[in-house]
Amino acid sequence: MTRGFYIGRFQPYHNGHQTMIEHIAADGEVDELVLGIGSAGDSHTVHDPFTAGERIMMVTKAVAEFDLVTYVVPIEDLDRNSVWVSHVQSMCPSFDLAYSNNPLVIQLFEEAGIEVRQSPMFDRDRLEGSEIRERIIDGETWRDRVPDAVVEVIEECNGVERLRTISRSDVVERWEARPDEASD
Amino acid sequence: MTRGFYIGRFQPYHNGHQTMIEHIAADGEVDELVLGIGSAGDSHTVHDPFTAGERIMMVTKAVAEFDLVTYVVPIEDLDRNSVWVSHVQSMCPSFDLAYSNNPLVIQLFEEAGIEVRQSPMFDRDRLEGSEIRERIIDGETWRDRVPDAVVEVIEECNGVERLRTISRSDVVERWEARPDEASD
Amino acid sequence: MTRGFYIGRFQPYHNGHQTMIEHIAADGEVDELVLGIGSAGDSHTVHDPFTAGERIMMVTKAVAEFDLVTYVVPIEDLDRNSVWVSHVQSMCPSFDLAYSNNPLVIQLFEEAGIEVRQSPMFDRDRLEGSEIRERIIDGETWRDRVPDAVVEVIEECNGVERLRTISRSDVVERWEARPDEASD
Amino acid sequence: MTRGFYIGRFQPYHNGHQTMIEHIAADGEVDELVLGIGSAGDSHTVHDPFTAGERIMMVTKAVAEFDLVTYVVPIEDLDRNSVWVSHVQSMCPSFDLAYSNNPLVIQLFEEAGIEVRQSPMFDRDRLEGSEIRERIIDGETWRDRVPDAVVEVIEECNGVERLRTISRSDVVERWEARPDEASD
Amino acid sequence: MTRGFYIGRFQPYHNGHQTMIEHIAADGEVDELVLGIGSAGDSHTVHDPFTAGERIMMVTKAVAEFDLVTYVVPIEDLDRNSVWVSHVQSMCPSFDLAYSNNPLVIQLFEEAGIEVRQSPMFDRDRLEGSEIRERIIDGETWRDRVPDAVVEVIEECNGVERLRTISRSDVVERWEARPDEASD
Amino acid sequence: MTRGFYIGRFQPYHNGHQTMIEHIAADGEVDELVLGIGSAGDSHTVHDPFTAGERIMMVTKAVAEFDLVTYVVPIEDLDRNSVWVSHVQSMCPSFDLAYSNNPLVIQLFEEAGIEVRQSPMFDRDRLEGSEIRERIIDGETWRDRVPDAVVEVIEECNGVERLRTISRSDVVERWEARPDEASD
Repeated sequence: MTRGFYIGRFQPYHNGHQTMIEHIAADGEVDELVLGIGSAGDSHTVHDPFTAGERIMMVTKAVAEFDLVTYVVPIEDLDRNSVWVSHVQSMCPSFDLAYSNNPLVIQLFEEAGIEVRQSPMFDRDRLEGSEIRERIIDGETWRDRVPDAVVEVIEECNGVERLRTISRSDVVERWEARPDEASD
Repeated sequence: MTRGFYIGRFQPYHNGHQTMIEHIAADGEVDELVLGIGSAGDSHTVHDPFTAGERIMMVTKAVAEFDLVTYVVPIEDLDRNSVWVSHVQSMCPSFDLAYSNNPLVIQLFEEAGIEVRQSPMFDRDRLEGSEIRERIIDGETWRDRVPDAVVEVIEECNGVERLRTISRSDVVERWEARPDEASD
Repeated sequence: MTRGFYIGRFQPYHNGHQTMIEHIAADGEVDELVLGIGSAGDSHTVHDPFTAGERIMMVTKAVAEFDLVTYVVPIEDLDRNSVWVSHVQSMCPSFDLAYSNNPLVIQLFEEAGIEVRQSPMFDRDRLEGSEIRERIIDGETWRDRVPDAVVEVIEECNGVERLRTISRSDVVERWEARPDEASD
Repeated sequence: MTRGFYIGRFQPYHNGHQTMIEHIAADGEVDELVLGIGSAGDSHTVHDPFTAGERIMMVTKAVAEFDLVTYVVPIEDLDRNSVWVSHVQSMCPSFDLAYSNNPLVIQLFEEAGIEVRQSPMFDRDRLEGSEIRERIIDGETWRDRVPDAVVEVIEECNGVERLRTISRSDVVERWEARPDEASD
Repeated sequence: MTRGFYIGRFQPYHNGHQTMIEHIAADGEVDELVLGIGSAGDSHTVHDPFTAGERIMMVTKAVAEFDLVTYVVPIEDLDRNSVWVSHVQSMCPSFDLAYSNNPLVIQLFEEAGIEVRQSPMFDRDRLEGSEIRERIIDGETWRDRVPDAVVEVIEECNGVERLRTISRSDVVERWEARPDEASD
Repeated sequence: MTRGFYIGRFQPYHNGHQTMIEHIAADGEVDELVLGIGSAGDSHTVHDPFTAGERIMMVTKAVAEFDLVTYVVPIEDLDRNSVWVSHVQSMCPSFDLAYSNNPLVIQLFEEAGIEVRQSPMFDRDRLEGSEIRERIIDGETWRDRVPDAVVEVIEECNGVERLRTISRSDVVERWEARPDEASD
């Protein structure tokens, strides 16, 4: 039995992620896949609008269609790269290999002796999360870029309105949105 | 659609938990259940021997037999009772009611306006976790008190040996086991 | 102009505190007094039932009767004794002397070169907080041991019921109450 | 009895804030007002030069002229937007409505079911804090933009010199000022 | 070239530690030794009276007599056993083996694949730290149980008086000494 | 006996640092020097590529040639400027004066009443750390800018490859490298 690991912030989970996991499922390289939700404690910012709980819903519903046992695990930041691999390992079911094209993730896993698989395909849609968030803010089409389950989650939590509201902090005030920035 | 929430440390997940969740599944009160793994950052102590990842495995495998959609979510401690409910809510898919017999959990959820269901049955096996850990340490029978999936997880991670080894810190040295207590 | 500093957990603020501050006000040693609310982040335990906000109300209303300018400042724990004085100084208006009979507080302030005034009177009611909490739990008389303003605050936040509910965690389960102890 | 809440970093507290609170006092909408001092743990940077204690002094002295009961409460950052409202609520006397024009604050309070009042006037001077800090650094006039009490506090803590000194870190070294950046 | 690792809290560093390191130096098993100072952030309690800086002085001066290259490294607690080994490894020069008789340290290092050497001798004086602290508090002889360099460090920092003063918190008040326990 | 303090991030330790310490040693102003390693918890980023342990090796080996007793002490960030001096003092052997040209360090030490010595020479190479890291990334010559001992440490930990790998995160993805940024 082989178990793989793949991490993303999933802000939101989109078709690029879905294609990647479909590919891993089809490959048959792993029997089970752990999906880590990075920066789990962050939410309500333009960079990280959705809570860990909302992202768990997005991912779980979207991957249900694949013939692959999955574990969806929120990973809070420790802000210490040197202990990050141990932190991930303690929070997740044990895994045999990791999928990533992120250079830092590759470096950290390889220093810890964990095999990393890269693929040009994994990279293709990497920046789409940022573009989808901008499309939501600007009122452009975005629903065709995420699985249907993700549309549902975003609508249930009023995510479009939330993202537009908090984005006004950034545009007008030109600082990173924090609630205690209310009045300088 | 109704979603419930139930939290435990699951050190380890045992038949008392299993009966409780079977009961919730049979009741039909909820369509989905979020299972929070408390004190997710704690491990390798007599009180909390297993990592969050190991406990995710125990719970996920054990509840697979029920006809109930479940989400297994590790919850790290914030050590601030006053923000605990918000922390849980941000980490978990949204839920409509909570199951608990713990007075503090009941108090915190009720102050936050969340309905809590109690049951004499939930209480029955509350202290069994502690007893099972002592049985593992003392070499007494314990496998009949947990689901088969839990036995497998504990054996795969050499949990019996781990628990016995770290318990020697407590017995001989009479302090709470911490690695930097190595030499006073 | 001279400003003094006095810190307590105020769980709850009681007549012993009130007498002490009355004494400081009458003495005329200081023109202004900073009242630090210690362990500000703790609440909803038998040892620390009330939030910082509730304690701010208790103290502010109770000292309003004195002819003394006061500042009521919540102080969150840093859990580092060696930086505790700096932490207090950064959170509070600057002060010239501290009132305390607590040996650790005396030691830390004196190592930092800050004058500490002790008095047998300050000590007299030191343990009353613990006794008042037990009286509330056990249904004995306690209202005569705190200023009227404190009775009001405790009743407005349903403090009697809160304290009784969470105390059941301790009695029945014999562990320190934490919400994730819900089920072991 | 109605209590309002208003939060700012108050770096420093200036005439824009003073006008706003005067307005709230005159309105008669609230009987009492909680003034939260945001980012209370930050100090000694160009963005946040003053300690929480210094800011408590500024605010308390400045609002003394209004016929309004006020509570001045430092709020340390938790860096978790999803628990920020609970954190504020635990640190402050309970309040019925919040005043803010900050989109993130509005979003967080409204998701928590707390009423927020906005006003064009609240917004007018929002960025003045940044401009006043630059004026202090550049040696331009700034005393006419803050209440007299604030001038006194800044002069007592040698705030002008402090701000000018630490601003040289930013200008010359083009990095965010931190003490351990001493030598790269 | 082989480098070893040995950790203790060193509250204070005593003859048991000195004998152990003398033994390691004489053995010739390692060319260099990293000495980790555990719980580096703790000080000013009866359990941990001395700061990391004071303990660095004790250890460095005491081991200077041995023909062994040493590195003395304070290790702050992370309170996460599962990442403790990575934390130690990131803070210390890389090492090939660890010396310990502490069961938890052994377990954590062995799970991480690091060789641990035990010895009956290492154990002999393990609890002496606690006894020496009690002797200092009670005014009994203790100077013959620590290297001369340690006597000097303790006297320079007025350690005897500090320990006696803070011990009165424990005896009289029967609570864990914390500065904000000043008044309950 | 006089002891000085000098702090840097030492990413990496280079000839500018070496010249400065040579100068301090030659001056004879201090008998002993504490070398603080700032941001000790940071590693594996382009700004902070090396762990505290690796930097301890660099500094210890490089300063061995001077006739000066040194203590090399990693200092983790607390992210609270107001308690930074106390934090440094608790982690380090006590010192009488500090060497720095960093305006914030000067300000913080002087507010705490600690003498600071500045020198034009200290400033000269301040930004060289950043340039050396860029030279390593770009494949330009850098070994002539650091002591030989530093070259050895960087090569032993495969520092050149590590820095080049993680720098690709920044270039391609235009975000601050964090492992959980793997996939947006």
